[in-house]
Amino acid sequence: MKKILVIGAGRSSSSLINYLLNHSTASGWKVRVGDMDEALAKSKVKGNPHGEAFLLNALDAAQCEEEVKAADLIISMLPAHMHVDIAKNCVRFRKHLITPSYITDEMKALHEEAEKAGVLILNEMGVDPGIDHMSAKKVLDEIAAEGGEIHTFKSFTGGLIAPESDNNPWNYKFTWNPRNVVLAGQGGAAKYIQEGKYKYIPYHRLFRRTEIIDIPEFGKFEGYANRDSLKYRSIYGLDNIPTLCRGTFRRLGFCRAWDAFVQLGVTDDSYIMEGIETMTHRDFINSFLTYNPWDSVELKLRYYLKIDQDDALWEKLEWLGLFDETPIGLKKATPAQVLQHILEKKWRLDPEDKDMIVMWHKFGFRMEGKEREIQSSMVAIGKDLTYTAMSDTVGLPIAIAAKLLLS
Amino acid sequence: MKKILVIGAGRSSSSLINYLLNHSTASGWKVRVGDMDEALAKSKVKGNPHGEAFLLNALDAAQCEEEVKAADLIISMLPAHMHVDIAKNCVRFRKHLITPSYITDEMKALHEEAEKAGVLILNEMGVDPGIDHMSAKKVLDEIAAEGGEIHTFKSFTGGLIAPESDNNPWNYKFTWNPRNVVLAGQGGAAKYIQEGKYKYIPYHRLFRRTEIIDIPEFGKFEGYANRDSLKYRSIYGLDNIPTLCRGTFRRLGFCRAWDAFVQLGVTDDSYIMEGIETMTHRDFINSFLTYNPWDSVELKLRYYLKIDQDDALWEKLEWLGLFDETPIGLKKATPAQVLQHILEKKWRLDPEDKDMIVMWHKFGFRMEGKEREIQSSMVAIGKDLTYTAMSDTVGLPIAIAAKLLLS
Repeated sequence: MKKILVIGAGRSSSSLINYLLNHSTASGWKVRVGDMDEALAKSKVKGNPHGEAFLLNALDAAQCEEEVKAADLIISMLPAHMHVDIAKNCVRFRKHLITPSYITDEMKALHEEAEKAGVLILNEMGVDPGIDHMSAKKVLDEIAAEGGEIHTFKSFTGGLIAPESDNNPWNYKFTWNPRNVVLAGQGGAAKYIQEGKYKYIPYHRLFRRTEIIDIPEFGKFEGYANRDSLKYRSIYGLDNIPTLCRGTFRRLGFCRAWDAFVQLGVTDDSYIMEGIETMTHRDFINSFLTYNPWDSVELKLRYYLKIDQDDALWEKLEWLGLFDETPIGLKKATPAQVLQHILEKKWRLDPEDKDMIVMWHKFGFRMEGKEREIQSSMVAIGKDLTYTAMSDTVGLPIAIAAKLLLS
Repeated sequence: MKKILVIGAGRSSSSLINYLLNHSTASGWKVRVGDMDEALAKSKVKGNPHGEAFLLNALDAAQCEEEVKAADLIISMLPAHMHVDIAKNCVRFRKHLITPSYITDEMKALHEEAEKAGVLILNEMGVDPGIDHMSAKKVLDEIAAEGGEIHTFKSFTGGLIAPESDNNPWNYKFTWNPRNVVLAGQGGAAKYIQEGKYKYIPYHRLFRRTEIIDIPEFGKFEGYANRDSLKYRSIYGLDNIPTLCRGTFRRLGFCRAWDAFVQLGVTDDSYIMEGIETMTHRDFINSFLTYNPWDSVELKLRYYLKIDQDDALWEKLEWLGLFDETPIGLKKATPAQVLQHILEKKWRLDPEDKDMIVMWHKFGFRMEGKEREIQSSMVAIGKDLTYTAMSDTVGLPIAIAAKLLLS
């Protein structure tokens, strides 16, 4: 009997665990699910006789070592920066590992050692990264096989709220890790290539350089460029492609409004603010504006960011309660943490809400002397707040990879 | 006979070395001047019998150790990050040290050890930091001694070009370390306090939140806030002051034009650009603009940054040759390095040029029930390109401190 260890039973793990348990009888698997929150792990295993939920502290090195040693395959659904310690144990005890996260430099550094140990460390096996790579590479390979010459590849993905649950002016709710949403785009300029020209967008311009894409039946989305599109050129075998850009989708109008936060400086996560404990939402916004006791925070903000009287983005800001005298309710925080806290009060999911994953690729190529284009898209809508579209699209590729690997 | 070791004979050391040599006979000093460039050191010592110029490699740990051991007092004029290794030797061999640079955390960590060894490590002994602290503290202490209650302290300093040498549209030339100028304001939001309210300015807004100050006889300057004004509250004994801001001066209109670089993203020093070797100035600017082969780089930039047809800042940009098809002339560089390289072609000093240091303080206080204000300013103009205002104002406080220390 093969033992699969799943570390982390959060929202993204639901469909993964379900798939593994559904195949456990036929495949002869034991599925052990460890989480800091044992009750959460139990709720995902649902008493399945091939499953086992247990308390796992990923910071407890000794426990992690024991668990990795006892398993045949490890699936890490931990926050991205925590995978590498698990990976080191996997190499040491010669166990395969699957994660849905981007390959970090630290992870990459394990490559040779893993190869020597005969161990597969399979990363980027979720939706973005994951399904995006696989679906794009499938079309790219087909085009190449038919003699097409690819000159353009664009790919955007977004984790959003389903149309039936979309009832706020931002057309957005936190369907995934809120911190990642608040910090998105930080840590360096976005880099891409267009018609053979390298292009660079600094963070403070990123959300104003969007592209609008129409997805059949689902309407318009706007995409902003991801940090480094260039590194995928050689991985995709597109070293000489003149146009390549990868990015993230939001609903129309989101990015322009989000840019107000970027311009204010409230997405900064690099310093602790003074006196947060006694501040209101209004005080928080005022901290980033000039001192003028005789003018309102609203007018100072409109003036600073040149927001016209009739600009619809104002409704978005107001709806968040940014100008309310509501206490923030944190003791010590960076601007980004305060903003996240304020957003979480409003962008939370209702019990009946469903999420949505939207992915789109565009391939431009020349074949038999003719200019051709293929657009492909995928839209997934969640069943409920446990079996979300995110959970399906992140978890099922991992689960299927696990099945292939074990057989 | 006391031996003074001066490490670094660059532009900022000229007046320092001159002062020490002029006092060497009366005080009985031997002044040893070490530099990577022995000829440079010799040109500063000018054959004075109490002086000695020699080749010093500050990266040669053994040589530095020997030199520190043999001296009675060390003055480090090295780049700021290199002081700390010298300081460690000074503590070890119980020698006093003077530097003109900001106290880093690493330097601060030596405090107790230095105290135990009976060694003085005197930093921030130049102009800014240096004269700014001393001149401000003098007035602050006087106000306090007379029973005044200080509520406002503002202080700005700038290293600029003298009016008689000011002949370009930026009213600016590199009179000091160009790299520091290009990177100024980066590495975190500017923080200050106004009327008891903490205020934060992100980097991409810093050069648009300037204050205009009129200095008698020298005209108007604009000041932008320095990174962290708050840390000087306790050092100045002003823990509860409601308004405190420190900053940097430029000539009027500089900051708005510099902000065009910030907005474009060309001051970013965090990544190496692709293909610099074959690029022109025009290509460089175009890398930060959208792809549109049918529109000019000029119009794309005007549109992107909303620069009106009649805006005077355009003349500044054009004068720099940003839109010329001149090869950049670098092989591998970050955007900030390319920008610096382009600026250095234009902002260089002519042989007859003189520099200028401008410093201004404002003190607001209540005394005997009345509102009072003191403004003080200092303007220093250099003699030539060796004995610059920067060299005088950085070097003389150090030299005078050395004299006091040795007697």
